[in-house]
Amino acid sequence: MQKNNYNYQDQNFYITSKENPAIRHYRKLRDHKKARKTERLFVIEGLRIVRDALQYPDLVEQILITEKFRTQAQNSDSPEVFKIPEISKKIQILYISDAVGNDLSDTEHAQGIFAVCRMPVQKSIPEILRPEGKYLVLCNLQDPGNLGMILRTCDALGMDAVLTTGSCELYNPKTIRSAMGSALRVSVVDEPDAGKLLQLLRKQNITNYASVPAKNALSLTDCHFQSGCAVWIGNEGNGLPESIITLCDDAVTIPMRGGAESFNAAMAAGIFAWEIMKTKS
Amino acid sequence: MQKNNYNYQDQNFYITSKENPAIRHYRKLRDHKKARKTERLFVIEGLRIVRDALQYPDLVEQILITEKFRTQAQNSDSPEVFKIPEISKKIQILYISDAVGNDLSDTEHAQGIFAVCRMPVQKSIPEILRPEGKYLVLCNLQDPGNLGMILRTCDALGMDAVLTTGSCELYNPKTIRSAMGSALRVSVVDEPDAGKLLQLLRKQNITNYASVPAKNALSLTDCHFQSGCAVWIGNEGNGLPESIITLCDDAVTIPMRGGAESFNAAMAAGIFAWEIMKTKS
Repeated sequence: MQKNNYNYQDQNFYITSKENPAIRHYRKLRDHKKARKTERLFVIEGLRIVRDALQYPDLVEQILITEKFRTQAQNSDSPEVFKIPEISKKIQILYISDAVGNDLSDTEHAQGIFAVCRMPVQKSIPEILRPEGKYLVLCNLQDPGNLGMILRTCDALGMDAVLTTGSCELYNPKTIRSAMGSALRVSVVDEPDAGKLLQLLRKQNITNYASVPAKNALSLTDCHFQSGCAVWIGNEGNGLPESIITLCDDAVTIPMRGGAESFNAAMAAGIFAWEIMKTKS
Repeated sequence: MQKNNYNYQDQNFYITSKENPAIRHYRKLRDHKKARKTERLFVIEGLRIVRDALQYPDLVEQILITEKFRTQAQNSDSPEVFKIPEISKKIQILYISDAVGNDLSDTEHAQGIFAVCRMPVQKSIPEILRPEGKYLVLCNLQDPGNLGMILRTCDALGMDAVLTTGSCELYNPKTIRSAMGSALRVSVVDEPDAGKLLQLLRKQNITNYASVPAKNALSLTDCHFQSGCAVWIGNEGNGLPESIITLCDDAVTIPMRGGAESFNAAMAAGIFAWEIMKTKS
């Protein structure tokens, strides 16, 4: 990030220009995957997720707070409200005008708190796999909202990790928003080569299940998941590639009785995750 | 709808003006809930859902097709592609330029097919309730994407109906898109008074369950749903009102083991629907 000459820690000063380098930098990270990838930074917005991120203070590089938010926080007794003095001194705090806040915001009603965060170092697949682990594998998933919803569900249910291959980006602002704080908590590891990922899972004796909408597949109600298992969820429109279905140990389907021909991919992932986790003591 | 002087059935003519009354009318229905409510019309976009809608030809008032879509349909042998001559003569077909199609579209890559549909006459709650029926009740649900996803899931699983109270609009384009064709297939009945709705369910001996994130509630894994049951799902941020939780026969929670404090409302609804329906023979 470019250095600025302003003393941002001075609460009497705040940024009013949308062209301020820090503001441009935030927007660049918000809008461009390439910038996120190159700088290994991403942005988050909203009180709840910023508080979640502060559980990992090393990940937070900068917090941006609007005038309105600061005034509300100073006048509030609610423990829900973020206390500015509690933030680690290592984190840069920038005060910004409400208009600049609206410019940064991805939502209609901006809360007025934003942060720039560092991407954690990604572990390798072999490092995180355990023979008795429970995993979802997202193969060619395209919708960031779906990815976020899956992360939130896997976090709530206590799945061990989410593995991705050929899928949308974890640090897309839509993914982050839809995941709530779960994008920061769930282990997510990407392996671009789906075949290689399947081999790595097999090597740990993890059973691979392909989620398919086919009526002739094993019904989820008859499926007894092995203690170490990974359920593969495919693309929203096209499902899983045939090559992957063939390589998996079993193809499993959520039985359907009604008119819809398939489930939303996130919903299918959630129902599988629920079935895997609910019997865990 | 205003009458136009053009002979739209003439395939040599197509609308090129965004200010054409039919185009303005479509946009008005797309963008304004009030217009939809007054005219009892709504819009849909995309080949798949238009084909779904044509299963109920009386519901379809008008189909709008871009030049590009028409050319593709004429040159395609795929049974997936919509055959224009197969459409009932009662349905007005308008040909529009690709630029007009982009103007109507809610998506980045418009397929080039749109329709204006009539809202079906809503049945009353007592008309649709059966003592052994399986229902979800959406109470103050606000996100159209969530409503659509719930409809798609209930359709796939074969739930009897979705009841709404204080929730977002069924005919919002975002709901329709997220529901795929399910918004046309699933019985959805609204009753603005939540207390009255609960009484109507009770009168049919239907057991009411409140979905709550509270750890001290009955766990979904220990819940044996009565044959006639309704699960109440609350607002995305605030859950169900206390008054409703108190009036329900039981409060049930999806057990959580991880870091997320709650499920997305659509995901919770889907997991409940799955648990209710999966044991149905």
